[in-house]
Amino acid sequence: MKISELSRGSGVSLPTVKYYLREGLLPPGRAMGRNQAEYGDAHLRRLRLIRALIDVGNLSVAAVRQVLRAVDDAELPGHDLLGTAHEAIAGTPRADRGTAGWQAARAEAARIVTERGWRVHAHAPALDQLADAIAALRELGQEDMLAMVDGYAEATERLAAQEVGLVLARADRAAMVEGVVTGTVLGEAVLTALRRLAQEHTSAGLTEAS
Amino acid sequence: MKISELSRGSGVSLPTVKYYLREGLLPPGRAMGRNQAEYGDAHLRRLRLIRALIDVGNLSVAAVRQVLRAVDDAELPGHDLLGTAHEAIAGTPRADRGTAGWQAARAEAARIVTERGWRVHAHAPALDQLADAIAALRELGQEDMLAMVDGYAEATERLAAQEVGLVLARADRAAMVEGVVTGTVLGEAVLTALRRLAQEHTSAGLTEAS
Repeated sequence: MKISELSRGSGVSLPTVKYYLREGLLPPGRAMGRNQAEYGDAHLRRLRLIRALIDVGNLSVAAVRQVLRAVDDAELPGHDLLGTAHEAIAGTPRADRGTAGWQAARAEAARIVTERGWRVHAHAPALDQLADAIAALRELGQEDMLAMVDGYAEATERLAAQEVGLVLARADRAAMVEGVVTGTVLGEAVLTALRRLAQEHTSAGLTEAS
Repeated sequence: MKISELSRGSGVSLPTVKYYLREGLLPPGRAMGRNQAEYGDAHLRRLRLIRALIDVGNLSVAAVRQVLRAVDDAELPGHDLLGTAHEAIAGTPRADRGTAGWQAARAEAARIVTERGWRVHAHAPALDQLADAIAALRELGQEDMLAMVDGYAEATERLAAQEVGLVLARADRAAMVEGVVTGTVLGEAVLTALRRLAQEHTSAGLTEAS
């Protein structure tokens, strides 16, 4: 297909497709004469992946390049590929990660994971994110909320088997990475919206009963 | 206590405390002569609530004023108070909420809630957030992820009883609102960090076994 058809088929604007080509995120098409190139289905799928990473995962172009390199590295094991995608979407760290309060929260996060027997990378970004939230709760004097940790851990452990199964069932590495990004970011959005609705429903019942 | 002690005790800078006083978020202290006022524990607690709303909930000053009005309105039932706090932290809507694709996703969100027998407000912001995520998944061709909806709904329903119970057990209305804001925003952060860690643990196990 022509570049204009690639743009239409993917829903990505023509200037943006050209930008991705210039930045090397999208491989060049097959040259078909002066100023003409032919693109295939692989280009469409790569565009969809780039779009998921940038629009949904809020990744920078540099981070997208890093993830695509992992997708294209056939030697890289599946789990490391998922880890690369996970790390890329981890976002910007909080400013106060050096303080004693944060260090204590970080140790608490590590302890929670160890006690559950979870095997995770010692530098997993989600450990820092967990520490961020714990530190903020303690700082605001809301540590009673930490009573939820066990319930959350049990629920997420049960859900993870199904979530990771869905992603690993995908046909190829690009689709798997797409699944990690959309599953993490949009799956999170689905989960947290349902959480708020379930709370509203429960609150209606509990406050009526009292 | 003096205003300087109020600042030290709350961890909120003196200029910021003065700003909250000028904006009427914080009630004036008891006048103790020219340019001197005495503040009490109620001021400290109100400051902590304002801080949770602004720093954690990312609320504007106008939104904080609206929530504080609900806190101070003794006639307002507890459930409506929680609803006001929930709505205030709902955030900015996506731009594409008018499209046919979004409308279909919104109908799907309403159906999910109805099928579970959840009683929620027809205009609950979380219904729109759920529709945002569903629309994005469909648009990206990742609708297989929607297989998780039932699992998420069951898990959040189970957790909500405990979460709402924690908040309603609090001593007074201000503490309840604090609990809604920190429970929603920071509780969400704890839950999603644990979700990523559980996924990493599960992925390590599944990819090794295969």
